[in-house]
Amino acid sequence: MNRETVNPELFPFDLIRPHIEKVEASIREQVQAFDPGVEPYMEYICDTAGKRIRPALAILTGGATGEIDENHINLGVILELIHMATLVHDDIIDGASTRRQVPTANAKWGNGMAVLLGDALFSHALRLSTEFNNLYLSRAISSASREVCQGEILQTQRRFDLTLTKQDYFKMIEMKTGALFAAACQLSAIISGTSKTVSDAMYDYGMKLGTAYQIYDDIVDLVGSEKQIGKTLGTDLEKGKLTLPILNLLERADSKQKEQLSKRIIEQQALDLPVLVGIAEYEGAMAEALQTATQTVADARATLDHLAPSEFTTAMNNITLFVDELLKGCR
Amino acid sequence: MNRETVNPELFPFDLIRPHIEKVEASIREQVQAFDPGVEPYMEYICDTAGKRIRPALAILTGGATGEIDENHINLGVILELIHMATLVHDDIIDGASTRRQVPTANAKWGNGMAVLLGDALFSHALRLSTEFNNLYLSRAISSASREVCQGEILQTQRRFDLTLTKQDYFKMIEMKTGALFAAACQLSAIISGTSKTVSDAMYDYGMKLGTAYQIYDDIVDLVGSEKQIGKTLGTDLEKGKLTLPILNLLERADSKQKEQLSKRIIEQQALDLPVLVGIAEYEGAMAEALQTATQTVADARATLDHLAPSEFTTAMNNITLFVDELLKGCR
Repeated sequence: MNRETVNPELFPFDLIRPHIEKVEASIREQVQAFDPGVEPYMEYICDTAGKRIRPALAILTGGATGEIDENHINLGVILELIHMATLVHDDIIDGASTRRQVPTANAKWGNGMAVLLGDALFSHALRLSTEFNNLYLSRAISSASREVCQGEILQTQRRFDLTLTKQDYFKMIEMKTGALFAAACQLSAIISGTSKTVSDAMYDYGMKLGTAYQIYDDIVDLVGSEKQIGKTLGTDLEKGKLTLPILNLLERADSKQKEQLSKRIIEQQALDLPVLVGIAEYEGAMAEALQTATQTVADARATLDHLAPSEFTTAMNNITLFVDELLKGCR
Repeated sequence: MNRETVNPELFPFDLIRPHIEKVEASIREQVQAFDPGVEPYMEYICDTAGKRIRPALAILTGGATGEIDENHINLGVILELIHMATLVHDDIIDGASTRRQVPTANAKWGNGMAVLLGDALFSHALRLSTEFNNLYLSRAISSASREVCQGEILQTQRRFDLTLTKQDYFKMIEMKTGALFAAACQLSAIISGTSKTVSDAMYDYGMKLGTAYQIYDDIVDLVGSEKQIGKTLGTDLEKGKLTLPILNLLERADSKQKEQLSKRIIEQQALDLPVLVGIAEYEGAMAEALQTATQTVADARATLDHLAPSEFTTAMNNITLFVDELLKGCR
């Protein structure tokens, strides 16, 4: 979450700073688990990829459901390593040369090396997950990891597929982004020993928050400016990824309009993409996507009723308000 | 192992056929664990990648150390899925268009899709490993998986690196090929409940066999013909991978000769590569590599003294003789 630019006091970094520092220290420690020849690559990746959102969620949920301990920290570390592995692989697939203003692994060392570095990170993360001595946790983490990969596969497979439905889109973003957010919150609650009702509610919180955040990310890809976000933008449409604003637009178009939109999406003549974004804004398809994201964040917020009041519960509420702010910034 | 062409009766497929059929059935079943949109891709990969050597080793060791049960089969399936994931990723890195005469995943669906399919296979395999309800096994499997990735990273990193030593080479092939062979045998023995002495011996068997087989594979890449092996050959040198015959040659060259060899390895003018192979054969560097592989197979064979005599122990011995035959075929 674009913490540098939007109302930073809503994002509760101060509350969890000591814990996030433990996460960072542990990530640095993980780097040393690799072969000396592999370590420097891992160090670069761990220093430059991932915004520690998943660890933040694991820690906050840990605080909101009990005492934050080593296991919450470890859960955050493992999920962040998996997330970093997917970022390294995503950057290959998208041919991205920078992420948050620094060169990507594929840009620095080529696609082959980036494939392998992601694989080693994946394996290491899943190995770490066995150290909980709790098979349920290991299994849930590898399942979430499989969900993320499958979400990405479905998305890749359906590029330029104009039969994609909004239902397909929601399923894809739930898998590719929701799954790890949901795992961070649900498994953290399970580590705290909460009731199933609470851990299920935390699953929903993470899933809704992740989904809303992904919708935001997809909107920003269409309307944001490169400088503001720090990664290459406008690439989704170019790569044939149909996201919510475009699906909204296709849904409300009559058959003649649909033909025009399809032509622009597929052929991508000069100006087709900015024109598509302009039409989506003009027709209210962008606003509708923002509305969906806002509602999804509100759904996330509602799950917090299952938690006792505490500064952590407040912080989790603030995160939803933070995403609201991000969404308002797109209007 | 090139079972179609070399003395097939030495490879004990008949003995373990019913078990290998269970492995195949289970692999087909795993395919169904994926999202319907992902399944057809996985089906293709599972049908075309992997020769089931790792499952064969898990089953044979299971038989040689006790009764073959579900767990030995599952171990074989998990290791084969990990192996298939690495093959899918290797083919991206090597830009290979066919494997065993069929198009690779990257050739069929592009690099991006192949990256993701390998990732999903990895995650699924590591998820399956949690179903042993034995954290030691899960951990050993994810460690072996990490070793394989790291071995590949080191190899990729040191392409065209003329300072590579034979020690570096052995370390790399132990990681990239030995680790999964060793895991198949060692963990299978552990599943059977053997003493540590026996499971350690089985680790050594797998490690030595895998290492010898990799040396063979590297030799064949230099001297084999495409038709015989069913994958694109001669690619190692072209990609700057320095394998044992070339390292032997570099070791015995005087400084003037070394300069000549280095020039051919780095510049790769027309005919440089066949000439390098010719010199390696002429100077006995190829024969020395074959000798090393033969000795390594003999070391694998010696570990079998720790097993009680049985048809499975005989079969494991026959596998070493099978590799001997493969090596003789290179002379």
